Amino acid sequence: MIKHTDISTLGEIGLIERVRQIVDIRVDDATIHERLILGISDDTAVFRPDPGKVMLLTTDSFIEGVHFDLTFTSLRHLGWKAMAANLSDIAAMGGSPRYAVVSLSLPKKVSIEMVDEFYAGAIAACKRYSFLIVGGDMSASMGNIAITVALTGEAKEEQVLYRKTAKPGDLLCVSGHLGASHAGLKVLQREKQRYHDAPDPATFKPNLEQYTLALEKHLMPKPRFDISALLAGRVTTHAAIDISDGLASEVHRICTASGVGAKVYEHNIPLDSVTRNIAIEFSESPTDYALFGGEEYELLFTMEDAEFEKLESLTSDATIIGRITEQSEGIRLVKESGEEEELKAIGWRHF
Amino acid sequence: MIKHTDISTLGEIGLIERVRQIVDIRVDDATIHERLILGISDDTAVFRPDPGKVMLLTTDSFIEGVHFDLTFTSLRHLGWKAMAANLSDIAAMGGSPRYAVVSLSLPKKVSIEMVDEFYAGAIAACKRYSFLIVGGDMSASMGNIAITVALTGEAKEEQVLYRKTAKPGDLLCVSGHLGASHAGLKVLQREKQRYHDAPDPATFKPNLEQYTLALEKHLMPKPRFDISALLAGRVTTHAAIDISDGLASEVHRICTASGVGAKVYEHNIPLDSVTRNIAIEFSESPTDYALFGGEEYELLFTMEDAEFEKLESLTSDATIIGRITEQSEGIRLVKESGEEEELKAIGWRHF
Repeated sequence: MIKHTDISTLGEIGLIERVRQIVDIRVDDATIHERLILGISDDTAVFRPDPGKVMLLTTDSFIEGVHFDLTFTSLRHLGWKAMAANLSDIAAMGGSPRYAVVSLSLPKKVSIEMVDEFYAGAIAACKRYSFLIVGGDMSASMGNIAITVALTGEAKEEQVLYRKTAKPGDLLCVSGHLGASHAGLKVLQREKQRYHDAPDPATFKPNLEQYTLALEKHLMPKPRFDISALLAGRVTTHAAIDISDGLASEVHRICTASGVGAKVYEHNIPLDSVTRNIAIEFSESPTDYALFGGEEYELLFTMEDAEFEKLESLTSDATIIGRITEQSEGIRLVKESGEEEELKAIGWRHF
Repeated sequence: MIKHTDISTLGEIGLIERVRQIVDIRVDDATIHERLILGISDDTAVFRPDPGKVMLLTTDSFIEGVHFDLTFTSLRHLGWKAMAANLSDIAAMGGSPRYAVVSLSLPKKVSIEMVDEFYAGAIAACKRYSFLIVGGDMSASMGNIAITVALTGEAKEEQVLYRKTAKPGDLLCVSGHLGASHAGLKVLQREKQRYHDAPDPATFKPNLEQYTLALEKHLMPKPRFDISALLAGRVTTHAAIDISDGLASEVHRICTASGVGAKVYEHNIPLDSVTRNIAIEFSESPTDYALFGGEEYELLFTMEDAEFEKLESLTSDATIIGRITEQSEGIRLVKESGEEEELKAIGWRHF
């Protein structure tokens, strides 16, 4: 039985002090500590930027009922994921993460143990990707849980990866496999429904074992610093973006920002077998999961052919999915049949 | 009649583009523009820090039903206030604001016009205090409006104002007048009740004219960069904090962080006549408004007597309210009668 201790037993000051102790950790990158002058304990955090580097700043929110469902998302996963979404933005710019501030808006149902779990997930990300939580805000909520993280990063100015610099003739490439996060979500939603429909919920066992890869991709996505380090380092990359709202939306974003067109070859989109199997179970198209599913956190990038050869010698986890074209040629999807159609900019729709 | 256009007519991408255009402004401080390499248009903002300065980072959230009530708070006021709360933290550290990211979580009832109003208030703060909005996040909400701002600032390292450096014997001082924000809130809550109780709400006129000073303090608080510039510049300040949760809480925070005690003289707490009159109307103590009312955004600071003399020659808007003592003497309130009592650390309670 998990304990449920009301946050009111600690109060706001007690809760902040508890979090201050939780986030007071050591990470591998010593400069993160050397350059931090003051973390949680004053009106703001204070840090020295690395000389000669530019700063990056990003923010992402996770709202209960919109971005997550507590029925099948643990607070620990949420802590990790709220960090991962921001980290992925830093990775997509070719930077390294530095300092984060975390705002939590918590309804009464949230216990101290749940806050601990959230920070356990967040701290796991801090340790894995070498950055620190240096401040935040805690408030009550009359409704849902709302989580907002803002994260700074640093990069060498000449190595920043923009989305506005794709060039006609570039290869269009992605890291990893796509569609798995959406496939994982589909399974979790189905098992939630099965739980609700079960004659005896107490003995209900969700059927999750064979879907581990997709579930992990959905619940604990990994920002691709391994790939972005190559893209911003040994390989010359023209443009990059992280895939948070589905491949189709992100191809459109690169094309719009760069004033170019693109051709995406459906049969080249990398899909793993678990994602394929899940799509088949739901009688849906696995390619649609890749094109229109959100929260992928892989990277989409463009470079010249010769540079991709270099990249291929450094990693086996990058795939060519198409080519950048002139703007006048539009943004096209080439189907397996050889037919071409417009690639629609449909992604996760908030409004 | 105010137009109400559903956000779904624009969609998320349309809404972000609209906001990008709204926040694309010029501010007086040219370095803000020179050092910004990229605002809203990529995965993160990119900027160069000022050489030799330290960076500050802070965040604050505003949750509907907790921090604000749309019955009497306009979205324009909210836009200003969400910025002001963060700006006040930067001011309390002796810094200057630089770049902000804004996360909005919006339920269906929020129209495009309301988003425009929010940003009109936020942009007014950008222009007034010379900083830029360079990114953010937009999402739907199943419940309340949630607003989170994260703001960076910069300061000379040797001029940063901490709360941990108060020394026994220091004067304890505040900027401006206290209690007005809470007094303004009391009036707004009363007029809301009168509106609900009115036999004919359509012809109801709220009674607000004589309370303008307090209402403005509550709805459009001004971060005290005028005072913090002196504290971090021509005067040697030992410790500083902004008063966001009531004077009593903030005195405790300075004392705890510095390992000191304090004596606060009740009759020296600066109160304006509007606040006094409102407290009298409610048969409450105006000192209690100052000690325990939130969202004041004045500064609380400590310095030696000789430095206060210097400060007094530069501004008439600073008041001595007490003295820092040894920790063993406790944190005490000296009443007008001469009696002493413990100063309780009661402020705004979230949990």
